[in-house]
Amino acid sequence: MKKFINSTEYLLDESLLGFAKAHTDIIKLNIKPRFIQRKNPTPPGKVALISGGGSGHEPLHIGFVGTGLLNAACPGQVFTSPTPDQMLAAAESVENGGGILFIVKNYAGDVMNFEMAAEMLDCPNATVLVSDDISLPKSHSIGRRGVAGTLIVEKIVGAAAEQGADLDTCKILGDKVNSLTASIGVALSSCTVPALGKPTFELKDDEMEMGVGIHGERGHETLKLASASEIVDLLTHKIDEELKPQQGQSVLLHVNGFGATPLMELYLIYDLASHFWEKRGITITRSLVGNYTTSLDMAGCSITLTLLDEELLTLWDAPVHSANLRW
Amino acid sequence: MKKFINSTEYLLDESLLGFAKAHTDIIKLNIKPRFIQRKNPTPPGKVALISGGGSGHEPLHIGFVGTGLLNAACPGQVFTSPTPDQMLAAAESVENGGGILFIVKNYAGDVMNFEMAAEMLDCPNATVLVSDDISLPKSHSIGRRGVAGTLIVEKIVGAAAEQGADLDTCKILGDKVNSLTASIGVALSSCTVPALGKPTFELKDDEMEMGVGIHGERGHETLKLASASEIVDLLTHKIDEELKPQQGQSVLLHVNGFGATPLMELYLIYDLASHFWEKRGITITRSLVGNYTTSLDMAGCSITLTLLDEELLTLWDAPVHSANLRW
Repeated sequence: MKKFINSTEYLLDESLLGFAKAHTDIIKLNIKPRFIQRKNPTPPGKVALISGGGSGHEPLHIGFVGTGLLNAACPGQVFTSPTPDQMLAAAESVENGGGILFIVKNYAGDVMNFEMAAEMLDCPNATVLVSDDISLPKSHSIGRRGVAGTLIVEKIVGAAAEQGADLDTCKILGDKVNSLTASIGVALSSCTVPALGKPTFELKDDEMEMGVGIHGERGHETLKLASASEIVDLLTHKIDEELKPQQGQSVLLHVNGFGATPLMELYLIYDLASHFWEKRGITITRSLVGNYTTSLDMAGCSITLTLLDEELLTLWDAPVHSANLRW
Repeated sequence: MKKFINSTEYLLDESLLGFAKAHTDIIKLNIKPRFIQRKNPTPPGKVALISGGGSGHEPLHIGFVGTGLLNAACPGQVFTSPTPDQMLAAAESVENGGGILFIVKNYAGDVMNFEMAAEMLDCPNATVLVSDDISLPKSHSIGRRGVAGTLIVEKIVGAAAEQGADLDTCKILGDKVNSLTASIGVALSSCTVPALGKPTFELKDDEMEMGVGIHGERGHETLKLASASEIVDLLTHKIDEELKPQQGQSVLLHVNGFGATPLMELYLIYDLASHFWEKRGITITRSLVGNYTTSLDMAGCSITLTLLDEELLTLWDAPVHSANLRW
């Protein structure tokens, strides 16, 4: 295993300390229990957004704490859910009369721990479960996973909360964005979880893994490595079948890198994916290309499409100032 | 070779098309010859900043075209200098009475081609050569290479140009920032140049390469893989010996990823490097952590330090709005 670390035990804390120091203008770190929160307190009556999950997906979620986005994020160990005491401490610190909205990627551990925290909270609260990964069927026993679409949910609900939307409105809006968002990913390599010390799966030099999640798990199918055009064709068709955008539909197209894929390739993927939908008369109104929801050092990418209406577009465009997302 | 491409021949153009589509609000693309320029024309009398170099370092330079930064960037093929006709066409398109400042990383091909373009320009022009890579001795026959410090030069001079500084002032300022900036990098893996199809050098599982550049060339020394603390100790000592910051000196600390290193590790490196200088009484006034000057899919990072005075700090803080750097 080749990584810049001192020990798997202190990796997370050393990294969080660096993150906190590098962004003292925007966030602050609580070490015990671990959470990152905005430097500026929540204005009275504003809904406070809290997300979290295993580490190794940076900049998700800690990089998205800031104005117009999250109020706090709770990082677990690598690919491991944070614990309810983190969420409770974060909630206590950022709640200011508007209640708490948890934004949770749909994984058993995260869901269970955020549920426990929600039960123990003594303030109004709600939870948006993100389940945008269409590589699994809707009927899957534990439901679909939350992947790169999580950022879209966080950004849009974050803008609404900033503008004064109440807890019910934020919850309904988050569910709406989730229902209008679909993602699917492909990997050219596995990733290496520090505590494991070796890749979580092996791919031959001429293979790729379709439908991967973001935790180094295998996808639904191992295929022969194909050209970028063929790969994008597979991914975009799947998303198109799921969301069935109509001619003239406005969309947000997000090409996300898993950590080790050069921007040059991500922009090439963006070019091909945008061609696919433009040919069908879909209007790509907004785009986001880069490494936003990563899986440590995995080579690969995902494509996410969100159907936009005027409300979602306005909220997407609203100012945002976090460590790793700004406009 | 595992990459998202259709062919090595069209990789650059397909990628640039995607980049241009994803950022239509900020930039536009000229295909023949290839350059990216700001969407908004240069205001009359403003110095126009142009940079460029081989592709494969994204977001450098195309991602830094925008308000408060570059007016245009000329991308060559992967790790290959752009040609003088690109620089000339870009200059013709963005020059508006204030003259042209070329910002050029110190590599033989880039220097030669930008020099040829400068000779053919019929407007006032100057060139800042960036040579921040201290892994080579100052006495090296072709001088030191330009690496991650290039962005620091571009950002600070870009802000000055935006505020109306004239060509001489911009040139002197660029040279000043370069002289106050030092970088050094370490790689855990090579990168794979698409046209070559295999890694440009091999490292064993327990080896790392010190003093690497950003073109997949070997560094000055292959060492046994060490802990993050030991690695940072080596890098920071080298930089400290070079720049010799005094107690109380204000600095900008930039930890740059080469493409395949997770943010989690980069922030850990930042934590360790900031400790090193804080212990010496140096004040880390500003920071930048992320993949800004990459080397395709290389795993590794570099540390860059710039000594700041009030002028440089104010210019660093000035607003910037490009595809990949914003505040």
